[in-house]
Amino acid sequence: MDPVISKHSLLPTNLGPGDAFIVIDVQNDFLPGGSLSIDKGYEVVAPLNRYLRLFQKKQIPLFFSRDWHPVDHCSFEKFGGRWPAHCVAESVGAQFCPALDVPESAIIISKATEVSEDAYSCFQSTGLHETLQRQNIKRLFVGGLATDYCVLESVKDAVRLSYTVVVLEDAIRAVDNEAGDGHQALEEMESLGCQTLTLDRWLPYPQTASALLVDLYQINMMKSFWDRRMNQTAMFEFYVRRLPKERGFLLAAGLEQVLEYLETLNFSDQDLDWLKDQLLLPQDFLDYLKSFRFTGRVEALPEGTVFFQEEPVLRITAPLLEAQFVETRIINLLQYQTMIASKAGRIVLSAPGKSLVDFGLRRAHGAEAGLLSARASYLAGFSGTATVQAGALFDIPLYGTMAHSFVQVHDRESDAFEHFVRSHPQNTVLLLDTYHTEQAAEKVVTLASRLKKEGITIQAVRIDSGDLGAHSKKVRSILDAGDCPEIKILASSNLDEHSIRQLVQEGAPIDGFGIGTRLVTSQDVPCLECAYKLQEYDGVPKRKLAEGKKTWPGRKQVFRNYDDRGRMCGDILSLETEPQQGTPLLKEFLNKGRRLQPPTSLEASRSIASQQLNTLPKALKQLETHSPYPVEISLALEEFTRSLPPPRD
Amino acid sequence: MDPVISKHSLLPTNLGPGDAFIVIDVQNDFLPGGSLSIDKGYEVVAPLNRYLRLFQKKQIPLFFSRDWHPVDHCSFEKFGGRWPAHCVAESVGAQFCPALDVPESAIIISKATEVSEDAYSCFQSTGLHETLQRQNIKRLFVGGLATDYCVLESVKDAVRLSYTVVVLEDAIRAVDNEAGDGHQALEEMESLGCQTLTLDRWLPYPQTASALLVDLYQINMMKSFWDRRMNQTAMFEFYVRRLPKERGFLLAAGLEQVLEYLETLNFSDQDLDWLKDQLLLPQDFLDYLKSFRFTGRVEALPEGTVFFQEEPVLRITAPLLEAQFVETRIINLLQYQTMIASKAGRIVLSAPGKSLVDFGLRRAHGAEAGLLSARASYLAGFSGTATVQAGALFDIPLYGTMAHSFVQVHDRESDAFEHFVRSHPQNTVLLLDTYHTEQAAEKVVTLASRLKKEGITIQAVRIDSGDLGAHSKKVRSILDAGDCPEIKILASSNLDEHSIRQLVQEGAPIDGFGIGTRLVTSQDVPCLECAYKLQEYDGVPKRKLAEGKKTWPGRKQVFRNYDDRGRMCGDILSLETEPQQGTPLLKEFLNKGRRLQPPTSLEASRSIASQQLNTLPKALKQLETHSPYPVEISLALEEFTRSLPPPRD
Repeated sequence: MDPVISKHSLLPTNLGPGDAFIVIDVQNDFLPGGSLSIDKGYEVVAPLNRYLRLFQKKQIPLFFSRDWHPVDHCSFEKFGGRWPAHCVAESVGAQFCPALDVPESAIIISKATEVSEDAYSCFQSTGLHETLQRQNIKRLFVGGLATDYCVLESVKDAVRLSYTVVVLEDAIRAVDNEAGDGHQALEEMESLGCQTLTLDRWLPYPQTASALLVDLYQINMMKSFWDRRMNQTAMFEFYVRRLPKERGFLLAAGLEQVLEYLETLNFSDQDLDWLKDQLLLPQDFLDYLKSFRFTGRVEALPEGTVFFQEEPVLRITAPLLEAQFVETRIINLLQYQTMIASKAGRIVLSAPGKSLVDFGLRRAHGAEAGLLSARASYLAGFSGTATVQAGALFDIPLYGTMAHSFVQVHDRESDAFEHFVRSHPQNTVLLLDTYHTEQAAEKVVTLASRLKKEGITIQAVRIDSGDLGAHSKKVRSILDAGDCPEIKILASSNLDEHSIRQLVQEGAPIDGFGIGTRLVTSQDVPCLECAYKLQEYDGVPKRKLAEGKKTWPGRKQVFRNYDDRGRMCGDILSLETEPQQGTPLLKEFLNKGRRLQPPTSLEASRSIASQQLNTLPKALKQLETHSPYPVEISLALEEFTRSLPPPRD
Repeated sequence: MDPVISKHSLLPTNLGPGDAFIVIDVQNDFLPGGSLSIDKGYEVVAPLNRYLRLFQKKQIPLFFSRDWHPVDHCSFEKFGGRWPAHCVAESVGAQFCPALDVPESAIIISKATEVSEDAYSCFQSTGLHETLQRQNIKRLFVGGLATDYCVLESVKDAVRLSYTVVVLEDAIRAVDNEAGDGHQALEEMESLGCQTLTLDRWLPYPQTASALLVDLYQINMMKSFWDRRMNQTAMFEFYVRRLPKERGFLLAAGLEQVLEYLETLNFSDQDLDWLKDQLLLPQDFLDYLKSFRFTGRVEALPEGTVFFQEEPVLRITAPLLEAQFVETRIINLLQYQTMIASKAGRIVLSAPGKSLVDFGLRRAHGAEAGLLSARASYLAGFSGTATVQAGALFDIPLYGTMAHSFVQVHDRESDAFEHFVRSHPQNTVLLLDTYHTEQAAEKVVTLASRLKKEGITIQAVRIDSGDLGAHSKKVRSILDAGDCPEIKILASSNLDEHSIRQLVQEGAPIDGFGIGTRLVTSQDVPCLECAYKLQEYDGVPKRKLAEGKKTWPGRKQVFRNYDDRGRMCGDILSLETEPQQGTPLLKEFLNKGRRLQPPTSLEASRSIASQQLNTLPKALKQLETHSPYPVEISLALEEFTRSLPPPRD
């Protein structure tokens, strides 16, 4: 298989042999503090360094020019010139700015080295042109100082010598002796046929999720549909085919991020440039993409809703191109949070009344996983997270303790404890197991009794290794015997719902658990068998027949029934229009691309999850999954499915 | 455990002229330690400061009311009132809380300044109403203390005076003399038609990884170290304690992202504002954070290097505050890519000569996981990815096919095929299993022979369900019989190294594999037992003794030895300074916070990985892991470890 784009093809598309990078006169004397200082001179350094890195990657030759005058140079006022003395060869003022990266491999071009000749252009009497010719250079990327003198003159010479010139617009600054000189110089260079470039149009590509966070096939299919103007209303449903054997139920989460994605989806200019250059898409299709927005409808289970296999969690009804395009990110967002909320829900059920905190950022699969696992676990009933940015983003309560290294850098563990408490007198959790857990607990008692006299209390201790049950009992005894019954015990170390239930059942006196890796990776079930499938197009129900991956066509609804104690007792998956007993679960959230109500707060979704977990049938509140919850396919839906004609051909 | 910051909830609006912000009585006497203290009074300060900043941005007038009593005020118990003496004009108790931002431009409203008149409402005898009218104010945003007294009475007056009132629900707290008073007051205000508002919707915090992408404990520890000016050089090592039983080796990946993180790490103004308001950090510490940069040194295994348990993958040597702070994100970045590259390396070994493409974005744990799994799998030897943004970011070749829905929206499968080929005449992969795989292959043959006359070729077909081996054989026969030997076969559907090896061994005529879920979640091993541990501080080796989590102290090096056929045959983990046989693997990448050479290109790292996989011992090229690779701990390192004195105390 050939790839559609191949490697080494970053913008500008054809960077490579024949190109050179020229940095003009970024010397101390031209920078603030120098004898011929340019006010904003320093501003060129950061972009030049970034450009440099890009050019280096492409192994493009690098040239750095500099003024390199004799002490009695003719351009100096004292010797009849117009400038103060500057850039005297070998002086500090003539050195390149220390913050500028000048690689070993760069070629240095010294200008105006003779008493009687002044030179603004890096081509004047420097042999640069000959050097470039030997290397068969055709195009120059030029930045540096100053726009209205040496950059301008160098560029003019370059144009005269038939080079293609690209002026790095964000990496030049002007003297501006007269206001507007720099601007005028740039205009002059453009009028000579120079191109201009800025970094943000180029690289780096943003690491944040952009509209390009899709599978290539979405764009390929979009292009095909667009070619034929096939854009009738399509309906897709997201659902989980089968529950993993380790899960008796799932908890819907991630809808809020999906709605945000759909409401803000659009291609940036950078996206469009990239698509144009890399996928060679035609301009009229690019114009369509420029105006592309999601204009459809979303029905979904509210976040925090318990659901089961084959039940639609989210339905998209939209023009085909939109409904198809959003597949990748919708699955990406819904699967992960649903998986984490479901895992967290089990942990919540296994530890009634305990404080549960997400500690998982470091082992999460990247930044977004860390942020969203904090959100999904809080939604499912956790007390909070250790991830600061999740607190900032989602207003989730934050919890923090200390690391072993904190103890280790102190000569004495007891000093470390006291030091930490005094820095955080309101809110301290001390870590006990750096050396010896029970001995550390004794130190806490000693410290606590001393600090109590000052009105400072220690909130909790944490145990992070060994037999947590045994240690917690011993530590509890030590704390109680030491008259510290108010100090709570927090435990962590590879915990999950099973080990927590075990600790709870054996009566371990642990008040709270920090849960990391096994939560944020959903270690026992790191993926769900979920799908986003076309069920209807242009009013016609659609059905896929692939082996083991059949689908229920048409618009459906989930009806939930409760027993007389208010516990869920059975769902019916039926056609949307079919009258059924029970509460319909899918609700409308977005219409014509706009929300029907303000975003649901995370707190409100958390209440839903709590209420849903409470109404689970008893068997599903257990960690074991022997008794699957009944989900009935309505007769009408079965009938309807059977009645569909096989695909033509 | 109490969280360090607690939850609030949501708010968006149309702020502007006609609005005013009123903060009621946030004075020392109403805060813990004051004469009429409200237990949770401090909790209003952070949200009020955040609201304040928002209102200031919109140039909304700001009013701060205060009780400002004479010493013999009628509300004081001693003079027949119901309260202890409080907020006596000019006293410390009457001052605004020092942590509350009260801008110069704010208007101060003093209440109950006469001996004989008490006033809970900020409208009573203060002239506030007249002032607001002059400014044409229609809507008031009200927060402060206390919900059940002065806030309630002020709001009641405001409603009576026909203002629209928005109560800042997360920025008020109640006295709660009777439990529930505050709650009841809020209900009363709502019943009067007041809206309520909370912050978390209002300030969109960037979703991109910021400096706040850390565990809270990093900031807590940093603050403690800073309090004592403990900032000597610390050395931490990142390593994997034990190989998972499913892995015979690991492949280092993620260093490039770590270096980028370290080079660019800094706190934005928004980060600092947030830390100030939410964690109530002191200004001098915030000033320190503002200038915070990583200035240390990084030694590491180059990306693509094979490594084993206990071997340092990365070492940070830096001032303590920096070295500690970067822990969370370093683990987050290194674990994930290393895990994925290691999984991908096994897949590469199981399918020599086959084209392997990452299809996993949708099931990856969020956006960054999708992007970085594309990078890590390419590094390990994959041919490319389907993730468009990964192509844009990392210059990875892109591959794309089509989805079942593409076939389904067409009335005839053969129309779908032709339509797709005509849209992508250069590069078409047709999906066979929407309805019936072999029948679809027949249609491809018919279409291909017709299109050949037009000079259009079909590149490949894809099979995505059922018995891939059996289907691929039948499809190959059909294609060959139909004179289409050039059409390749691509397979996907829950593939991993085991199923691919099986297909390869049974001679399935499959040319390329699309690998998704099991790759990007590293499904069998979704986390590594990795750690980032302090090994030295201020020149003194450090050792942790926690059960099952002991560490090797000091600066170490990994020496690798090869047999006479150039295959790796054993590593030695030793002290850095110890002379050892073999090639040292750790190299220096960053010094004084700056790179020592330009970034290693992904292509170069991919070559390293390829070379490393080639030199694996034969047993490690198998998927089974019966024969662990020998990693010897040097005698000197063992000796050194034993010789360290136990921690003092």
